[in-house]
Amino acid sequence: MQTDPSSPGFRTRFVLIQTSHAGNVGAAARALKVMGFDELVLVQPRWANVLRRQETIERASGANDVLDKARIVETLDEALEGMTHLCATAMTPRDFGPPTRAPREHFAQLAQTATPEAGAQGVAFLFGSERFGMRNEDVYRCHTCLSIPTNPAFGSLNLAAAVQLIAYEWRQALGGYAVQEATTPPVRADAPQVAGLLAHLEQALVAVDFLDPEAPKKLMPRLNALFNRAQLTQEEVHILRGVAKAMLQTASKASK
Amino acid sequence: MQTDPSSPGFRTRFVLIQTSHAGNVGAAARALKVMGFDELVLVQPRWANVLRRQETIERASGANDVLDKARIVETLDEALEGMTHLCATAMTPRDFGPPTRAPREHFAQLAQTATPEAGAQGVAFLFGSERFGMRNEDVYRCHTCLSIPTNPAFGSLNLAAAVQLIAYEWRQALGGYAVQEATTPPVRADAPQVAGLLAHLEQALVAVDFLDPEAPKKLMPRLNALFNRAQLTQEEVHILRGVAKAMLQTASKASK
Repeated sequence: MQTDPSSPGFRTRFVLIQTSHAGNVGAAARALKVMGFDELVLVQPRWANVLRRQETIERASGANDVLDKARIVETLDEALEGMTHLCATAMTPRDFGPPTRAPREHFAQLAQTATPEAGAQGVAFLFGSERFGMRNEDVYRCHTCLSIPTNPAFGSLNLAAAVQLIAYEWRQALGGYAVQEATTPPVRADAPQVAGLLAHLEQALVAVDFLDPEAPKKLMPRLNALFNRAQLTQEEVHILRGVAKAMLQTASKASK
Repeated sequence: MQTDPSSPGFRTRFVLIQTSHAGNVGAAARALKVMGFDELVLVQPRWANVLRRQETIERASGANDVLDKARIVETLDEALEGMTHLCATAMTPRDFGPPTRAPREHFAQLAQTATPEAGAQGVAFLFGSERFGMRNEDVYRCHTCLSIPTNPAFGSLNLAAAVQLIAYEWRQALGGYAVQEATTPPVRADAPQVAGLLAHLEQALVAVDFLDPEAPKKLMPRLNALFNRAQLTQEEVHILRGVAKAMLQTASKASK
């Protein structure tokens, strides 16, 4: 999963067609950038000045470079130069159209086509307007219809949310970004260390009169099971042995 | 991937802590619902009336039932009754804390724990405020820190976008929703059908004086390669043979 996300043989572009809400344009810019993409093209947006509107800039939340290099064009054709694989985010029209696929499975296959023989590829994701979606004529041009799997009773995905999910899935398919552990990985206690802790605790529990050595029932095996399930670290064994020691010392004082 | 999404042994809740923007609360409600979840709890939101604010309702875009049953509480504890597995959406604090995991891999493991022996489980996803994220004390309580893999140079994910991605990944891990093909799957042409088409086309190309039968070069093998790559359907073979037939008829008229 940790390949270099900048190197695969794909150029990626997000194309928003006839978008109505400036907020969605800003949120889309942010969604792209957060997944490491930067090509945004708007076809006939409702507002000619959408890239400079306050709501756009607020919702972009710092993705200004994506807005700065975004292009506004009149026709879908102008948005597609260099693009070799077009993904509609739409249902396939009922009569006819490209196959409908879930993003995850489609992207896994698509990413595998990044071979030297395949040459440079351009992948465009097309998003229709908030109200009407994509026109059938635009869908017919596409290689695939992407359908994000949603609640059958409520499939109303926000435009920017759809951009975010697609950008995320495509980035994952391209190798993704690594998740950095903030802390050093713990060192697990081994079985003898857990047994040593249990013996120490047993003494302490007897000393504080919680455990009756004549009738121990299943207390120690129960604690053993708990510690096994918790997968104790060595540090935790030290802490718990410290507790046992303090219990023994306190009990010793109490009995004087 | 097509198991019943309503049946796994998990109750799921989204907990937003000290959320500032009403729009994010509405968008979060929509994001949940679109992935088939409905439990939203707000801990100390900035606006006491956030569930009834105009911006909330607009951005919820029809997910009113989620807003209607959403709860507002004063403390995180009140938000967590019935929850047995807490996922912070936050970086692990530098000093100490639960392990940091990517949602996809963590959810795959978590979903596998839905066994009869495990009993009923409650999974809560905790989201901090837009400005300050989660408090360390709240993170320490969690079983896992989820880190959505993002652009190392711009990890600024919108709160509602994060809710959408987590809801999507968790739904996928729970079995997901099926993607419905809108059209019937195509019937591929078999090799003899493609060969029949090529023979028909060859005649037509000779008839319109495009192909010189004395010097055919590699035209027909090239068309064969193109058709193989395109994985022709039977319907397409019929269309192309119709074209060949029309070419032959026109050529026959032209030569009269």
